[in-house]
Amino acid sequence: MITFPKGFRAAAVEAAIKKPGRNDLTLILSERPATLAGVFTTNKFAAAPVEYCRAIVASAAPVRAVVVNAGNANAGTGSKGLEDARETARLAAGHLGMTSAEVLVCSTGVIGRPMPMDRMAAGLEKVCAKVRTSSDGLEVARAIMTTDTVEKHAQRTAGTARIGGMCKGAGMIHPGMATMLCFIATDADLPRERLQPMLARVVEKTFNAISVDNDMSTNDTVLLLANGSAGPVDDETSFEQALLDLCRELALKVVADGEGATKIVTIEVKGAKTAADARLAADAVATSMLVKTALFGNDPNWGRILAAVGRSGAEIVTERVRIDVCGITLFENGLPTPADLGAVSTAMKARELPILVDIRLGSASRTVYTTDLTREYVSINADYTT
Amino acid sequence: MITFPKGFRAAAVEAAIKKPGRNDLTLILSERPATLAGVFTTNKFAAAPVEYCRAIVASAAPVRAVVVNAGNANAGTGSKGLEDARETARLAAGHLGMTSAEVLVCSTGVIGRPMPMDRMAAGLEKVCAKVRTSSDGLEVARAIMTTDTVEKHAQRTAGTARIGGMCKGAGMIHPGMATMLCFIATDADLPRERLQPMLARVVEKTFNAISVDNDMSTNDTVLLLANGSAGPVDDETSFEQALLDLCRELALKVVADGEGATKIVTIEVKGAKTAADARLAADAVATSMLVKTALFGNDPNWGRILAAVGRSGAEIVTERVRIDVCGITLFENGLPTPADLGAVSTAMKARELPILVDIRLGSASRTVYTTDLTREYVSINADYTT
Repeated sequence: MITFPKGFRAAAVEAAIKKPGRNDLTLILSERPATLAGVFTTNKFAAAPVEYCRAIVASAAPVRAVVVNAGNANAGTGSKGLEDARETARLAAGHLGMTSAEVLVCSTGVIGRPMPMDRMAAGLEKVCAKVRTSSDGLEVARAIMTTDTVEKHAQRTAGTARIGGMCKGAGMIHPGMATMLCFIATDADLPRERLQPMLARVVEKTFNAISVDNDMSTNDTVLLLANGSAGPVDDETSFEQALLDLCRELALKVVADGEGATKIVTIEVKGAKTAADARLAADAVATSMLVKTALFGNDPNWGRILAAVGRSGAEIVTERVRIDVCGITLFENGLPTPADLGAVSTAMKARELPILVDIRLGSASRTVYTTDLTREYVSINADYTT
Repeated sequence: MITFPKGFRAAAVEAAIKKPGRNDLTLILSERPATLAGVFTTNKFAAAPVEYCRAIVASAAPVRAVVVNAGNANAGTGSKGLEDARETARLAAGHLGMTSAEVLVCSTGVIGRPMPMDRMAAGLEKVCAKVRTSSDGLEVARAIMTTDTVEKHAQRTAGTARIGGMCKGAGMIHPGMATMLCFIATDADLPRERLQPMLARVVEKTFNAISVDNDMSTNDTVLLLANGSAGPVDDETSFEQALLDLCRELALKVVADGEGATKIVTIEVKGAKTAADARLAADAVATSMLVKTALFGNDPNWGRILAAVGRSGAEIVTERVRIDVCGITLFENGLPTPADLGAVSTAMKARELPILVDIRLGSASRTVYTTDLTREYVSINADYTT
């Protein structure tokens, strides 16, 4: 829960931006100015709120609030979109008695439609009033959902520090707009110079290591606010580990909620010559439509896995590569093993399953998480209208 | 037809390598030694016959025959696989009265099973005898098919020269093994120093510009044999254009036969700053599962196209990008246009449709061909067993 660490409050109201009858406007408030770290999509087609938040992260100034709306991504909206993001911050800041540079703004939803600023203004007034008397982490985790089927939140402790987070992954996990938002709050006191690189390292191993579509998620926005209410961190290594665990839990919840997915697949590549090679190979397997359809069909098709590794650009020597599916070696020494493929296929019916590719040329490794590719995925995305 | 140019014969027999009741072993024979050009997959997991043929292309020596079997890819078969490819060439050379270095060997089919060399030997004897009295271009175009639903052949003339070609694209168009073979014969007399780069240029614009799965095809093997029966080429530019037309026709036949595909989509990227940018952007759109499912659903989802271009790595300025679907501009000046999306959706129901992305930053362009992504594609590949 985002409200788990000391000194954070959160509330949501219905602003009629998404469909009626549900909360769609969220406010996260830190009672004290918080140090901010942020990681954003690398997509050059960045939504207005991403541009807005990027500038605040770059300023290195403390922040106190985050406004999040669901139902409209404020993307593909030109310069008016950026002005709307700024106006949203100004309105919230006015109600909360802070400067607009202390207010972050995030949006998720449909691309290419102007923000309904009249309804935003009314909603902001409501949510800023509500947060004074009410704080509910579950309510806000639900209010940021779009096509998610479940809310996604997690929490951890590290010594005296608490960390709480929530995210929305619309299943449409690709580096486009409107696909993933993650908010993390901690009451730890950590300087920005260490908070930002720590978040970048953690995101690399979690939100940047999941794939539902054929692209790795570059996650729209991950924001981490540290307000220091619990004092300094005595063991930063433990703190980073707790943050990593929390982000992995959230990232796996996004994969589990992947559109049409019936399986969560962990792909571990080890023995690569370089870290870049490990990443190339892992990404190629995780994004291969042929591998992902074979996973859906419980087909222990090591040939497709090997072909993906072979075309990934990673250095391999076919005779060295070993491939295990569900813990059973299927390919080794350049040849298929005499494994019982029927037994492997049965093992593949599990909801969670591992694939191991050991390149045996070095010591670099990379683990990524993906889903299978199903008819349901095609139905969802063929029938979804812009 | 591969038998269209002068001095080429071709025959096929049933060798019981694929399922019974159909021809699966093909011989293409040039009556005179032919200059050879070849382009191969860049997949590091290369099948034994690819390794074998690569060495012959590298030797720059003339060749006289090509043996092709369907039903077994001779891939993932270790050093025994390479020995089997060599033995195949030796056996054919013995029957045909030539050296084994004059015989190319290609395989397509299932990965990871040893070649049935006893049946190959019997089949080679039969096919080498048959080709003396019988030559049938259609018969061989059918014999090289695997999961193809139609045979794929084309022919062109350029002055006095004739060019004939055939290919098999199993629909599983990705850079793995056993997915695409193409054979082209010409009676033109062209030196190897010009034939090889010409083939490379043509393949780049044709077989390397098609995508059915999420990878661009790197085509297993494209072989071009020029036996000089029609004498020297008087206009090499016209000859190259004819070769390009022939290869484009074959490549589009592969796309049209794409697994589960209901549409052939031409994606043109223009105005890119560099050729590399144009390629990145075109490939990102052509391989995006979100774009391809939208195509299946007749959904004019320009947001997915723009998101794919934005994450492709190509340099873009959102405000400059223009996106047309079926000739109608949907996004321009950083904003969606007021186009009638219902009318665009209706236009998208056509079997063939164009997408244009004008980046407006330079003059580089790239055109690629793809299919939509359908439930049928998932069914075919989830239910296909290794």
